[in-house]
Amino acid sequence: MQVGIIGATGYGGLELLRFLYNHSEIEKIHLFSSSEDGISFSNKYTHLRRLIDQPLQKIEPEALQKLDVIFTSTPSGVSSKLIPEVLTEHIKVIDLSGDFRIKNTEDYEKWYKLPSAPQPFIDKSIYGLTEWNRKEIEKANLIANPGCYPTAVLLSLLPLLHDDLIDSENLIIDAKSGISGAGNKPNANNHFCEANDSTAIYKINQHQHIPEIEQAMAMFAHKDSPITFSTHLVPMNRGIMATSYAKLKEGVSKDDLLQSLHNKYDRNPFIRIIENTSKVSTSQVRGTNYCDIHINVDERTGRATIISVIDNLVKGAAGQAIQNMNVMFGLEETTGLTQIPIWI
Amino acid sequence: MQVGIIGATGYGGLELLRFLYNHSEIEKIHLFSSSEDGISFSNKYTHLRRLIDQPLQKIEPEALQKLDVIFTSTPSGVSSKLIPEVLTEHIKVIDLSGDFRIKNTEDYEKWYKLPSAPQPFIDKSIYGLTEWNRKEIEKANLIANPGCYPTAVLLSLLPLLHDDLIDSENLIIDAKSGISGAGNKPNANNHFCEANDSTAIYKINQHQHIPEIEQAMAMFAHKDSPITFSTHLVPMNRGIMATSYAKLKEGVSKDDLLQSLHNKYDRNPFIRIIENTSKVSTSQVRGTNYCDIHINVDERTGRATIISVIDNLVKGAAGQAIQNMNVMFGLEETTGLTQIPIWI
Amino acid sequence: MQVGIIGATGYGGLELLRFLYNHSEIEKIHLFSSSEDGISFSNKYTHLRRLIDQPLQKIEPEALQKLDVIFTSTPSGVSSKLIPEVLTEHIKVIDLSGDFRIKNTEDYEKWYKLPSAPQPFIDKSIYGLTEWNRKEIEKANLIANPGCYPTAVLLSLLPLLHDDLIDSENLIIDAKSGISGAGNKPNANNHFCEANDSTAIYKINQHQHIPEIEQAMAMFAHKDSPITFSTHLVPMNRGIMATSYAKLKEGVSKDDLLQSLHNKYDRNPFIRIIENTSKVSTSQVRGTNYCDIHINVDERTGRATIISVIDNLVKGAAGQAIQNMNVMFGLEETTGLTQIPIWI
Amino acid sequence: MQVGIIGATGYGGLELLRFLYNHSEIEKIHLFSSSEDGISFSNKYTHLRRLIDQPLQKIEPEALQKLDVIFTSTPSGVSSKLIPEVLTEHIKVIDLSGDFRIKNTEDYEKWYKLPSAPQPFIDKSIYGLTEWNRKEIEKANLIANPGCYPTAVLLSLLPLLHDDLIDSENLIIDAKSGISGAGNKPNANNHFCEANDSTAIYKINQHQHIPEIEQAMAMFAHKDSPITFSTHLVPMNRGIMATSYAKLKEGVSKDDLLQSLHNKYDRNPFIRIIENTSKVSTSQVRGTNYCDIHINVDERTGRATIISVIDNLVKGAAGQAIQNMNVMFGLEETTGLTQIPIWI
Repeated sequence: MQVGIIGATGYGGLELLRFLYNHSEIEKIHLFSSSEDGISFSNKYTHLRRLIDQPLQKIEPEALQKLDVIFTSTPSGVSSKLIPEVLTEHIKVIDLSGDFRIKNTEDYEKWYKLPSAPQPFIDKSIYGLTEWNRKEIEKANLIANPGCYPTAVLLSLLPLLHDDLIDSENLIIDAKSGISGAGNKPNANNHFCEANDSTAIYKINQHQHIPEIEQAMAMFAHKDSPITFSTHLVPMNRGIMATSYAKLKEGVSKDDLLQSLHNKYDRNPFIRIIENTSKVSTSQVRGTNYCDIHINVDERTGRATIISVIDNLVKGAAGQAIQNMNVMFGLEETTGLTQIPIWI
Repeated sequence: MQVGIIGATGYGGLELLRFLYNHSEIEKIHLFSSSEDGISFSNKYTHLRRLIDQPLQKIEPEALQKLDVIFTSTPSGVSSKLIPEVLTEHIKVIDLSGDFRIKNTEDYEKWYKLPSAPQPFIDKSIYGLTEWNRKEIEKANLIANPGCYPTAVLLSLLPLLHDDLIDSENLIIDAKSGISGAGNKPNANNHFCEANDSTAIYKINQHQHIPEIEQAMAMFAHKDSPITFSTHLVPMNRGIMATSYAKLKEGVSKDDLLQSLHNKYDRNPFIRIIENTSKVSTSQVRGTNYCDIHINVDERTGRATIISVIDNLVKGAAGQAIQNMNVMFGLEETTGLTQIPIWI
Repeated sequence: MQVGIIGATGYGGLELLRFLYNHSEIEKIHLFSSSEDGISFSNKYTHLRRLIDQPLQKIEPEALQKLDVIFTSTPSGVSSKLIPEVLTEHIKVIDLSGDFRIKNTEDYEKWYKLPSAPQPFIDKSIYGLTEWNRKEIEKANLIANPGCYPTAVLLSLLPLLHDDLIDSENLIIDAKSGISGAGNKPNANNHFCEANDSTAIYKINQHQHIPEIEQAMAMFAHKDSPITFSTHLVPMNRGIMATSYAKLKEGVSKDDLLQSLHNKYDRNPFIRIIENTSKVSTSQVRGTNYCDIHINVDERTGRATIISVIDNLVKGAAGQAIQNMNVMFGLEETTGLTQIPIWI
Repeated sequence: MQVGIIGATGYGGLELLRFLYNHSEIEKIHLFSSSEDGISFSNKYTHLRRLIDQPLQKIEPEALQKLDVIFTSTPSGVSSKLIPEVLTEHIKVIDLSGDFRIKNTEDYEKWYKLPSAPQPFIDKSIYGLTEWNRKEIEKANLIANPGCYPTAVLLSLLPLLHDDLIDSENLIIDAKSGISGAGNKPNANNHFCEANDSTAIYKINQHQHIPEIEQAMAMFAHKDSPITFSTHLVPMNRGIMATSYAKLKEGVSKDDLLQSLHNKYDRNPFIRIIENTSKVSTSQVRGTNYCDIHINVDERTGRATIISVIDNLVKGAAGQAIQNMNVMFGLEETTGLTQIPIWI
């Protein structure tokens, strides 16, 4: 297979490279850049010296037409314009941005404050939450790869919502993310001295991942309620922990919740149900495509606390994108994704 | 004034020292240790060289009797035994542990898994949440200084509960703390390599601060419901952010919430209401006795997100203890506590 | 006293404010900005809410003429133009930049790659290494406050060089700094994800502090040799550790080195000689004006390893500037600078 | 191949597992523990759930005899006793501790303060600095895998010493390490709050890696001089940067140094010579077996500054051990070691 990465110089692009480089079915990786073409990739990113020494290529139709699959890892508003130009019958595209995720274009424009991608492309895009949409992904030409927060939240909540075990109204989701989630462009919020040794909150109930989560809850679990959603920055490079709070439906026990998760996920290689609270942390999945899920039920309040952790750059971006590529091409889903977590 | 610190070698004790050293009304600080008496304090803590070079003293009744006020900053279960032995009419004691906070001794024993302090001492102890209990604190001989999480949670929620603006049932509190909250005893959870660059969750709905929060909600706001309460460890030395979620009572607006906070706190020197979400982080209060509070209301869900940040070792421990001492001795409440935050 | 800060919004300016706010002899602090005048300071820096709520003022001659002392905490190349315009007989200026430190204007232009300040102002400026230049500082109108690296290096090496105990040739200095040393302007090197969990080296033998160190070695110890000087970035907000390596002069022992340090510094309140290697770290001086010095002598090689630690923003900038102000105005040298280190 | 790891629960052991798990020539990995046998590995280390779920085995001769190669990753003083009991003709042992590195047993006992391994085993052990000792490693039964600091120091200095380009006397090495270097046992120095946001120095000229470095300088470059060697702890999990200072031999230029490095290393897959100072940091090699080397020459002093960075747990421990295993078994040297750095 010949694969291309558009936007290889971002954090998501670098992670695509990290996994694709050792992927057994990839013959060649082509790197594209709109602004830095001609530059040797390992001059810019010296950690790749001797590994990825090739130059960045210009984004040109002829170069793209030779590829089997293209990953677009670009800021919001870029691939909505680019993909309609390059998508053809025989090229598959996996878009890591939010541009093709929101089916309702008004919602996209409201939350992203950008013009939406054209409706026909929105219509044909398939939401790439692998564990919930494999059948569609197999046939897809255009994948809207899920956002980092939605991946963590949905993987943990969807089984419980789908099986009617928790109240879909009054869902409260408190998410914590490492700093890489906001990309590699320097600004005051990611200045080391201002991010280090501090926890901050941002975009309370205003994060553009909210409509994505709500849409997927409706799509996969037929639940249609607004969520309460907070996002926090914690001083670490990678990792998301989503702590969700939900009222149990009447008569539902902790075992019912665990059973639901095991039923859904026991044959899914990247989802792990963790029993021991003290083993639930973002370091458990660092650098990998795993999502760890943990459940607590408080008898005093009849409420469940549901925790999931992912690496935002892997299961929350590049790893899931490659998992989707594997599904699209009929490969073993874990191909190229079997790294062991770098726990410390 | 002559003050004593029992447990000066812990993180709380060190912070007491840091503030008391420059307190204008303190003549002498006496340091006591059960196990390290005779050792020069600045040999153990070299950062205090030239500042606190005196030896640690043995804990002996005669030495204690000469003091005006004693701070006990000891692990759970220590001051419950020690304070009944030393408390007399003419000595005031401020206990930074949880031993005298819980009025219901069964609750203490259930949540702390330790024998309670004797009931008469529990009865006479005054809960030292300064902004809510000044009148009682003025007359007190024994202060149960609030826990770090309860301080952050209660200061932000009590006005809204008291004024019946939010639903006291279904309160959900998601708290994040720096690593110092668990003290200075080395263990796997606070090993640098295991805490660094990772977020963890612990004691879900089982933290011993839960009955303290619920008791204070009943005491100060006459609300009596169990809370959902999660605690997270984030890789920073200091700081607590408590993110609380509550349903608004019917007809209540964001302005009502802000009005309630301003009414309660505008004459309280250490509480600041922050309008701008992007200025809400634990670094804003680092090293100081401030509590910053921020409110968000989501029209879509009718729910409020209420954030408060403190330095767990200051407003959540030593700073509030000194604030209480100032109130007990009729001093200006801010005496010795006017440091500027070390923002970075 | 009426003091002004030009450049109050930088990290150095914020530290000046932190100390001056509680300085007993300061009546009012005036804050100046060339680009943000009119803005309320605590709107920009919310951690100062209720403390420093005044607006930033325009830099205008009339406003400056009313002041007793002005601190300029501006990037290289700014105060070289500004100070000649505002310096008069009755105003004292303490410049925290490098613009007035280098007596040889060619050297300044070579190392800073900027035009030098006018020679007459260079000539009248006094190098503010307090412990070595008090007599001159007392009479000065214009202080060139030392750089952060030079402060750490010179305080530890000057006594030994002055007393001819170490070989002034072949001095090797390996310095490590926290990220705040490079200021608050966001760039790739101080992006949290790129600085975190990594150690980097920069400006090897090319740092603009090299001529400053060499000039002071000649001025105070009559030694005139080029140094080898490396600077490293370590993932922490504050702190400098300078590890220096020197050959002992013949017959010189470790005791001789210690004696030299004690002779010079025992009556200097901010210098501490530390015996125990395990107590030598930047955290020992965090947030304070202390410089800790430690000596090791290796019998196998006849070489001394000399370590000093400071807080780069305090003893390496704002703290030493205030110490100099105290000397200039005949105040107790420690006034306003008696904070206890925030060890953790 | 059947491989065994004794000491799998330490940081070095976990890294061995991380690489061996995806090593194409390994059939099975056996995990041994003296104290925790019977425990499921992934119960202890949940990040390995679904990957390494097997139980820890007791260390018993029969179990060990079936293996092709054993890695011992144990504290100093353990393998010196264990290996003589298990080493036979048909088992190869790679010891990651310092127990078999020092040929002079008196030196071992002086620097390690422990009894040495038996002389016959010391004699037959081969020092596993792969790039310098391949021929011997190919035939070895017992590898003394190099220490983390020696690996970083020697790889950068040996070519220059061997080619007589730098003065072997007066070598000064200033090394900085992440906290994992000291292992996973909790103590005050690795408590998060005390290590975080601080740089410390330790074991000045007393580190047990000093005789190892000096022995290898004699062995591979025929240079026999004592070194000056300082080790620093910086707040990061992994990584070593060694900054070395040496006088150039007369007439030697920077190009000569670079030429020497390129001559030696251009066909060595894990050594990279980096030209650009701004690309030299421990993050460049994080998680990988690379050693990056950078050279600076200061015309003013005639001195070279030589920097090398490695991941202390990989090239400085587990990675180099596997590289040695590959050499011993005639495999491609990079087998199992082709991971891309996790730069951020």
